Amino acid sequence: MAELPYRYETCLKWKDEAQAGLSAQGKPDLLVGPPPEFGGQDSWWSPEHLFVAAVEACLMTTFFAVARKSKLAVLGYESRAEGTLDKTAEGLLFTAVTLRPVVKVAAQDAERAGRLIELAKKHCLVSASLKTPVAVEASVLGA
Amino acid sequence: MAELPYRYETCLKWKDEAQAGLSAQGKPDLLVGPPPEFGGQDSWWSPEHLFVAAVEACLMTTFFAVARKSKLAVLGYESRAEGTLDKTAEGLLFTAVTLRPVVKVAAQDAERAGRLIELAKKHCLVSASLKTPVAVEASVLGA
Repeated sequence: MAELPYRYETCLKWKDEAQAGLSAQGKPDLLVGPPPEFGGQDSWWSPEHLFVAAVEACLMTTFFAVARKSKLAVLGYESRAEGTLDKTAEGLLFTAVTLRPVVKVAAQDAERAGRLIELAKKHCLVSASLKTPVAVEASVLGA
Repeated sequence: MAELPYRYETCLKWKDEAQAGLSAQGKPDLLVGPPPEFGGQDSWWSPEHLFVAAVEACLMTTFFAVARKSKLAVLGYESRAEGTLDKTAEGLLFTAVTLRPVVKVAAQDAERAGRLIELAKKHCLVSASLKTPVAVEASVLGA
């Protein structure tokens, strides 16, 4: 594994109106632009959605990393995430992010899976980079 | 325009290994998973890349919003963004994000465009939601 620090690069090229092509090495390009309430379109990935998605995806990848270390067999993982944007004394910003993961494991692993979700929350590097508080409301289903 | 607060929702469904489908209303689905240095693949959008992309895209959409308000004609906009992930006393997190926008405007608008980039930086709601310091190194090209 490469040594820290790690660097992550992305690239934007404006197309027209408010939309741009977002690219990063090896990944499919995305159209990005403002969401409808800021004059954009629902079909573009907005900065706001990318922000919420980064937090949501980081909890998942961190959970799979701690599960692998702990030899927990994960049978299913889905989540819903919601970010709340509001006016504050410091201006418009994300005042809350709530993640709702639903994790499926064998019945005897349910308690451990709950603990590992808490551990993943603690180690999630995107959450650690935010001022916005991140709440995790996890459901563990024991099959 | 809808009243604040605004809400942004995303959804993840695990597929296999470490990858998942990321979705949000009206937008194309994305495959997400860890980057190569955390055991994933370069072809997936990683949480780390989504994080950097959110900051980069927010500066652009905010710049276009302030430019429209100020009746500045923007002839071109591209940017490169880099996020640095490093170990700190609080654990692994993004210690810096650097955005390098290149803005093209008419020669007589160059100075104003530079001021509007600064204004956009100040009003960027994703940057305002981060602990990570965001540096903007802008180039303005007067055509």
